[in-house]
Amino acid sequence: RDMHQVLDAYEKQKSFYLYTGRGPSSESMHVGHLIPFIFTKWLQDVFDIPLVIQLTDDEKYLWKDLTLEDCHHFAVENAKDIIACGFDVNKTFIFSDLDYMGASPEFYRNVVKIQKHVTFNQVKGIFGFTDSDCIGKISFPAIQAAPSFSNSFPQIFGSRKDIQNWSDLCNRYSQINKHAFSGGKDTVEEHRQDGGNPDVDVSFMYLTFFLEDDEQLEKIRQDYASGALLTGELKKILIETLQPMIAQHQERRKQVTDETVKQFMTPRRLNFHF
Amino acid sequence: RDMHQVLDAYEKQKSFYLYTGRGPSSESMHVGHLIPFIFTKWLQDVFDIPLVIQLTDDEKYLWKDLTLEDCHHFAVENAKDIIACGFDVNKTFIFSDLDYMGASPEFYRNVVKIQKHVTFNQVKGIFGFTDSDCIGKISFPAIQAAPSFSNSFPQIFGSRKDIQNWSDLCNRYSQINKHAFSGGKDTVEEHRQDGGNPDVDVSFMYLTFFLEDDEQLEKIRQDYASGALLTGELKKILIETLQPMIAQHQERRKQVTDETVKQFMTPRRLNFHF
Repeated sequence: RDMHQVLDAYEKQKSFYLYTGRGPSSESMHVGHLIPFIFTKWLQDVFDIPLVIQLTDDEKYLWKDLTLEDCHHFAVENAKDIIACGFDVNKTFIFSDLDYMGASPEFYRNVVKIQKHVTFNQVKGIFGFTDSDCIGKISFPAIQAAPSFSNSFPQIFGSRKDIQNWSDLCNRYSQINKHAFSGGKDTVEEHRQDGGNPDVDVSFMYLTFFLEDDEQLEKIRQDYASGALLTGELKKILIETLQPMIAQHQERRKQVTDETVKQFMTPRRLNFHF
Repeated sequence: RDMHQVLDAYEKQKSFYLYTGRGPSSESMHVGHLIPFIFTKWLQDVFDIPLVIQLTDDEKYLWKDLTLEDCHHFAVENAKDIIACGFDVNKTFIFSDLDYMGASPEFYRNVVKIQKHVTFNQVKGIFGFTDSDCIGKISFPAIQAAPSFSNSFPQIFGSRKDIQNWSDLCNRYSQINKHAFSGGKDTVEEHRQDGGNPDVDVSFMYLTFFLEDDEQLEKIRQDYASGALLTGELKKILIETLQPMIAQHQERRKQVTDETVKQFMTPRRLNFHF
């Protein structure tokens, strides 16, 4: 359904950008981490629109037992993995919060605006914070929300105010991915008996984008729904389908230089046609 | 007692800077607002050390029914009043949070470090926040604490790590001033009967710095302690003592140009001798 909204908007020629992100908690990203970015790259190619990728190194510092320097280092290393997915440098801005907050008064102004209009009661309900949580965690949701407003990025969009973003869409998929949402059952026995639910399974969702053979996709749907195909087997099909992209990725990862990372992470005008 | 600590440190030739601030909630500052800055200017002259002045326009936005633009405008107008106190542009950096947060990754890194180590329970106890307060207020104390660390200002101090600040001292006086702490009694009758307490009276404290005639100061102390001198009369003596400075101030205020404000508010190396 989300996809239909996007297509409707696209047909009406509204001005859009994509916003997605990642909390960098280690140096290397595995296949599961990369899939949302491969999907985002596919969206960028299809719709030819600018993309903003937030690396929440400040979030990781607040939540984990890591130093600021570690978290920032992970952000730069993760940027290399993300770049290796094949994003267009002329249409993609990747930023570390620890860098960009101190480089854009407009971003901080949006953070403060959001912080003024969200109470502790609200974030307590949504994120499960308690009185023992540090004040950094409590106010963090505002930092993750700020990239949803195009005027957080005047270097990219200038003073244009009519630009909307698809973060709802991307975040929805990212959330699903984060919780590794599966349409399978708790045990193999239950799955064999009752079947799985392809409509809420994240692996199946990605297959609908990446598997070009419609008949094969329909067969997978039926086998998963009947219980003939297990969740682990479905995931294996997804990874096999993505294998060519992942092989390319590993080659590209080796070729990403510090200079390229710097280009992607420099606030600058992006190419767009609206 | 604070002053003795400062003098001890000064004699031991430690490297110090002063940090003070103000929340800009209106265009004009009155005499009561200016007195702490006249005192700070006196400290800067006597000790010849760099000074950092934080204008918490973000704080005013979070607490008051004002726009971000209003608050930033008040910060710039208040900077003019502060500059007119006669601060040395080569030794003074004045900043608006809304500008400086987006201009210094090092400042934001210190904010996040403080935010990680302070819980909601702690700020609830100290500042009286409730669950209905916005998340911006709850995390704000970290922004007011960050200028206490000299590495929040690499443009001023470079990579020097041995520089301490006197914010404790300045904040103490500012706090006293904020709450208009008086050593007088609640009613004139009580004051006449029991006398006032000059040792905790902010007006008397300032007189000890600005009144050059020691005998006259001693007489004021005795009259206030005996109840012969009322709190309002003590304040009048302070304002009369400061009158020449305030007259100069009004003249200087007219001459402060936008260019001068820009100079004071540009992050840059300051002159210091340590």
